[in-house]
Amino acid sequence: VGEVTEVGSKVEKYKIGDKVGVGCLVGSCRQCEECTNNEESYCPKQVLSINARYYDGTITYGGFSNLMVTDEHFIIRWPENLPLDSGAPLLCAGITTYSPLRRFGLDKPGVNVGVVGLGGIGHLSVRFAKALGSKVTVISTSSNKKKEAIETFRADDFLVSHDQEQMQAAAGTLDGIIDTVSANHSLLPLVNLLKPHGKLILVGLPQKLEVPTFPLILGGKAIVGTASGGVKETQEMIEIRS
Amino acid sequence: VGEVTEVGSKVEKYKIGDKVGVGCLVGSCRQCEECTNNEESYCPKQVLSINARYYDGTITYGGFSNLMVTDEHFIIRWPENLPLDSGAPLLCAGITTYSPLRRFGLDKPGVNVGVVGLGGIGHLSVRFAKALGSKVTVISTSSNKKKEAIETFRADDFLVSHDQEQMQAAAGTLDGIIDTVSANHSLLPLVNLLKPHGKLILVGLPQKLEVPTFPLILGGKAIVGTASGGVKETQEMIEIRS
Repeated sequence: VGEVTEVGSKVEKYKIGDKVGVGCLVGSCRQCEECTNNEESYCPKQVLSINARYYDGTITYGGFSNLMVTDEHFIIRWPENLPLDSGAPLLCAGITTYSPLRRFGLDKPGVNVGVVGLGGIGHLSVRFAKALGSKVTVISTSSNKKKEAIETFRADDFLVSHDQEQMQAAAGTLDGIIDTVSANHSLLPLVNLLKPHGKLILVGLPQKLEVPTFPLILGGKAIVGTASGGVKETQEMIEIRS
Repeated sequence: VGEVTEVGSKVEKYKIGDKVGVGCLVGSCRQCEECTNNEESYCPKQVLSINARYYDGTITYGGFSNLMVTDEHFIIRWPENLPLDSGAPLLCAGITTYSPLRRFGLDKPGVNVGVVGLGGIGHLSVRFAKALGSKVTVISTSSNKKKEAIETFRADDFLVSHDQEQMQAAAGTLDGIIDTVSANHSLLPLVNLLKPHGKLILVGLPQKLEVPTFPLILGGKAIVGTASGGVKETQEMIEIRS
């Protein structure tokens, strides 16, 4: 995030002095089906804004850069009332949770969303799901974060995943779960919390997870991965959040 | 499958002598969200037509029965031109593959469907997907079944899953895959065949499968389970097949 200091002669959308941000991407092919559907984060030729190589060979340094040169397509217009520093993480962690909430219809009153892990992405999942009107249940390995989840982030409910009785009572109640945990963990107790056709959405990157085949099939449930979101959706998210 | 030999006084849809069938289910609550949406196979109170206990305690014997007594809601009207014996398996294996093809939009021209395993469910997957207009690729561990897949079942393409070169060339080309294999196997090569947002649909019941987390997240892909289908959909399937 920062201010525009220079614009090329063909730039139309931004001018010097504009407050802007760059999200997870600085490049994509702009032609494939994904790009055409504003889903640049699934373009096979995408260039991440950090730790990648741009088409001309330049290495991208993301948030470690003092200065960025980017095609205007990948620029997010920054809302006036959102501080640059505290708002910046939304361009990665924020869109990573906002996008699946939207994509899978977990963005409205009457829908029950679970959030596993109350870390960087997790607390934003709770905030966005609440802002969009869903009922939110935080699921955690211990009750340490219960007060924070409910009082600070306004979650509606809190489940301790090791408490069999609590988990059993909540079985079959959630429409979707955002699983932000990056450590290996069992998916079975989470899949059991889902209603039929419910979705367990992975946004963390554990190395070894087992498919709970039987409950997945019996309940017509899904394990889904999602990778951040497109430019248009990132702009939408930052405006809702501001 | 068989002929109606007796009807209760409140039965409205069938009469003695009608040719009919009973699918995977003989009971469901008829009130929950799933039942209301004609998704009885996801009703938590469903009674399977085999190896289950009916609400009154009776054990269900499915296809091993000489005689069945069933609520008319769970009866499928048999098409005139479909032989009872060869058509019978459609009520289980048929609906198991027809339902996900429909649910996930894999039922039309322009869509590329993969089928893993050319057994009982697999060959029906190929036939239904072709009948609905999709392009079908069979994926198998060896080329033994290539001739049968293409000549008998009219698959469009055949991939040997151990052939790295073939698999690499086909990466990112399939909209969905029906995985009928019940033995443990690696899901990674299959997920790699999917387009972004593609779905790997499990209808077999392997005990130990690992989630290929990274490609699932990068491609926004899903591993989905499905359990047969509802009564209305079973009727629709048997009419299309006849």
